[in-house]
Amino acid sequence: MAHGGFLSVDLGHPFLNRTADGFLKVGTVGACKVAAEGTFHCLHKGDVSRHKVENALKKMCKEGAYWGSVAGVYVGVEYGVDRIRGHRDWKNAMIGGAVTGALVSAVNSNDRNHVVGNAITGAAIATAAHYLHHLT
Amino acid sequence: MAHGGFLSVDLGHPFLNRTADGFLKVGTVGACKVAAEGTFHCLHKGDVSRHKVENALKKMCKEGAYWGSVAGVYVGVEYGVDRIRGHRDWKNAMIGGAVTGALVSAVNSNDRNHVVGNAITGAAIATAAHYLHHLT
Repeated sequence: MAHGGFLSVDLGHPFLNRTADGFLKVGTVGACKVAAEGTFHCLHKGDVSRHKVENALKKMCKEGAYWGSVAGVYVGVEYGVDRIRGHRDWKNAMIGGAVTGALVSAVNSNDRNHVVGNAITGAAIATAAHYLHHLT
Repeated sequence: MAHGGFLSVDLGHPFLNRTADGFLKVGTVGACKVAAEGTFHCLHKGDVSRHKVENALKKMCKEGAYWGSVAGVYVGVEYGVDRIRGHRDWKNAMIGGAVTGALVSAVNSNDRNHVVGNAITGAAIATAAHYLHHLT
C-alpha cells in the first residue's frame, strides 16, 4: 500500500485492508491523544506515580480501540458505498458518517433519539471533513 | 476554483479564498446539521410552531457561523503551515488542528487547561481525519 506507510497490514482484500488500516492508524492517533493528555496532566500537577502511569496506559488502550473501531466502521461503510454508487464524493462521506454515528451510538446506548442525533452529527462532521480536505 | 463547486468566492488571494471557502462550505454543513436535527425533533414530537421554527433558524445561523469559523481558522493555519514547511502531510493537519482547538477554546473560555486539552483533541481529530482521507 502506497500511502506514506507507517503501520500497514495485508489481509488479502481491499475492504479488509482499508478497515484494518483505518483501525490501526486512527487507533494510534487516539492512543497518542490520551498519552499527550496524560503527559500534560502530569506536568501540570507535577506528580507522576506508578498508579497514574498504569491508569494512563489502560486508558490509551481503551480510547485507542474506541477511535480505531469508529474509524474502521467509517472506512468500511464508505468503501461499501463507494462500490455501490460507483464514485466518491461528499455523499459517501455523509452516508459513512451517518451510519458510523448511528452504529456507534446504538452499541453504546439504548435511546433511539440519541442514535438519530449522533447519526446527524456524524454525517455533518464527515461531510465537513470531506470539504476541508478537498479545498484543492 | 475546481472542486465540484457549490458556493465559491474570489477574494483575490489563495489564503483568503481558501479561508472563505472553508467558512462557507463547513458553515453550510453546520447549518444543515441544525436544520436536520430541528426537523427530526419536530417530527418526533409531532408539533411545529412558529416559535420553534424561528428558534431553529436562529440556531442554524449561530451554529453555522461557529462551524464556519472553526473551519476558516483550520484552513488558514493549515495553508500557512503548508507555505512555511513547503509540503503537506499529517503534521500540517496536526498543527492546524492544535492551533484551531487552542484558538477556539481560548476565545470561548478562560481556563488554560481547557485550552491545552482542546488543542490536543483538535490535533488528534485533524490527524485522524487526514489519515482517513488518505487511505488511498
